[in-house]
Amino acid sequence: MAGEFNLITQYFVNRQTQRKDVQLSLGDDSALVTSPDNVQIAISTDTLVAGTHFIAEANPAWVAHKALASNLSDLAAMGASPAWVSLALTLPEPDEMWLAPFSEAFFDLANYFNIQLIGGDTTKGPLSMTLTVQGFVPQGKALRRDGAKVGDWIYVTGTLGDSAAGLEAILDEKARNKPHAETLEYRHYHATPRLLAGQALRGVASSCLDISDGLVSDLGHIMRASGVAAVIDVDALPLSSELETFYRDRDHALQVALSSGEEYELCFTVPEEQKGQMDTLLAPTGTKATCIGQIRSGDSLSLERAGKALDWHVSGYDHFKVM
Amino acid sequence: MAGEFNLITQYFVNRQTQRKDVQLSLGDDSALVTSPDNVQIAISTDTLVAGTHFIAEANPAWVAHKALASNLSDLAAMGASPAWVSLALTLPEPDEMWLAPFSEAFFDLANYFNIQLIGGDTTKGPLSMTLTVQGFVPQGKALRRDGAKVGDWIYVTGTLGDSAAGLEAILDEKARNKPHAETLEYRHYHATPRLLAGQALRGVASSCLDISDGLVSDLGHIMRASGVAAVIDVDALPLSSELETFYRDRDHALQVALSSGEEYELCFTVPEEQKGQMDTLLAPTGTKATCIGQIRSGDSLSLERAGKALDWHVSGYDHFKVM
Repeated sequence: MAGEFNLITQYFVNRQTQRKDVQLSLGDDSALVTSPDNVQIAISTDTLVAGTHFIAEANPAWVAHKALASNLSDLAAMGASPAWVSLALTLPEPDEMWLAPFSEAFFDLANYFNIQLIGGDTTKGPLSMTLTVQGFVPQGKALRRDGAKVGDWIYVTGTLGDSAAGLEAILDEKARNKPHAETLEYRHYHATPRLLAGQALRGVASSCLDISDGLVSDLGHIMRASGVAAVIDVDALPLSSELETFYRDRDHALQVALSSGEEYELCFTVPEEQKGQMDTLLAPTGTKATCIGQIRSGDSLSLERAGKALDWHVSGYDHFKVM
Repeated sequence: MAGEFNLITQYFVNRQTQRKDVQLSLGDDSALVTSPDNVQIAISTDTLVAGTHFIAEANPAWVAHKALASNLSDLAAMGASPAWVSLALTLPEPDEMWLAPFSEAFFDLANYFNIQLIGGDTTKGPLSMTLTVQGFVPQGKALRRDGAKVGDWIYVTGTLGDSAAGLEAILDEKARNKPHAETLEYRHYHATPRLLAGQALRGVASSCLDISDGLVSDLGHIMRASGVAAVIDVDALPLSSELETFYRDRDHALQVALSSGEEYELCFTVPEEQKGQMDTLLAPTGTKATCIGQIRSGDSLSLERAGKALDWHVSGYDHFKVM
């Protein structure tokens, strides 16, 4: 459409250096790219809708970061190196005050990881965006969900819970006055896709995914795909100091960490004999990884404290309920 | 999210046979696929929003066809063979009455062209969908917009105008009582992506695109990309008999054919010396192609009748204005 053309031209064309594997990007009926030999292409699609994944009034730069970072996190979870991204943007009106900061932040993150915008669409409608990112992983080396074995150790990167606390600060006026509310709100939108960690874990992690639905829910995906059970030592869960201060009640903070979605940290399993190798490979990426439990036989998830079962009821994260 | 998982499982998993180049489709953080050697990958993304590209009450099966067909049409315009598709679907509620016919029609068309659904997302929000299709084209053989040369003949596939007339029948109650209104409405949603024609034109067409913004607008894209002018003989424009009966006034029907968007017919240019080869290659695809004009030097588009300039004012097609 004519409107599409104008929008794309102004804010999205010629904002990046050309990758050598991109022969044609914006401006024709499709992009043309070339995949390297001996790789699998990892492809992931994510949609963010105003009112479901972010509030319509949110800082456009923060929304851009969240959209691209959450999509890249899926490639990180496969151990893939990102290459190309398509952006389909739906806006109520072509709004320069929104497009300028959005595109700026989008390209900041894309350029940081050397990802090229190769196409997309801009349409009129309620504010939302769909991104498709693509990357490469050496043949047969992708980190999948179905390889966890009994006895493997369970790890997570970074800290957990900040995203949910940040969302609480965004949605609940009372929470906005709690200590560190602004920091947590910022973190809700500014996940770091663990791309280097994911690539480092190829060959040492037996399974991996990124935490988008909440640890309990996502670990459940690994359990079902691998046909195993798991136990989490709740006191091992890594919390930020800001989260502990925000909630004061440490047990409540731990429960939030168990269910917090959109964390975009990696949850992965490592066989006992690969633990040393894992530490060696992760060190240069600067990514902290914390052992939080172990894979067991069976099919249920247990929460433990000092070796004793806890009866906490922790549910998953569902956008259909949250906003 | 949890809701996403349920929706995808029920309507979109295990509905297709597995392509050999797809190693992992739905159910992990990303899909894993392999590209053949010596090809370029053509990638195209399209968004359809209720209220902009279709009415919210439209038959879900028709919407599915339109969404996938319009996206595939972009690959056809590059001369690519389609392989994979991602579907990001945003729905106000998980609605089985809508999902069942939508997914049925989606897979009907996908299976017809041997395209595998490899991933996507389902989210809560105002009804819309974004599709990303990918296909292959032999290295350097893609049909682009920038190769038209002075003297080349301009062709279109099929007939033009039915899509706009169908849209008029959908939106304007009076038009709904005109002859063939139902047929035209059906055609508005049921474009045939010209994939076989596009592939046949590799090596003979000097430029090609699909008509989504309207012939005048889209031919303008070829002209700008190639640095040329063009003349159209309006009486050569191929019209369906239904369109002529619907409008009665033939000149009005021709003007509609010039501006009608979302036709998803190919518009392409062919050098004089390739005309015979083009006929030979197109014949087995069963696609009718009509010569409607010629590329000239300069930068403007002229409309002619019996060799004389017409002063018709024909504008492009802009979703921001249409619905």
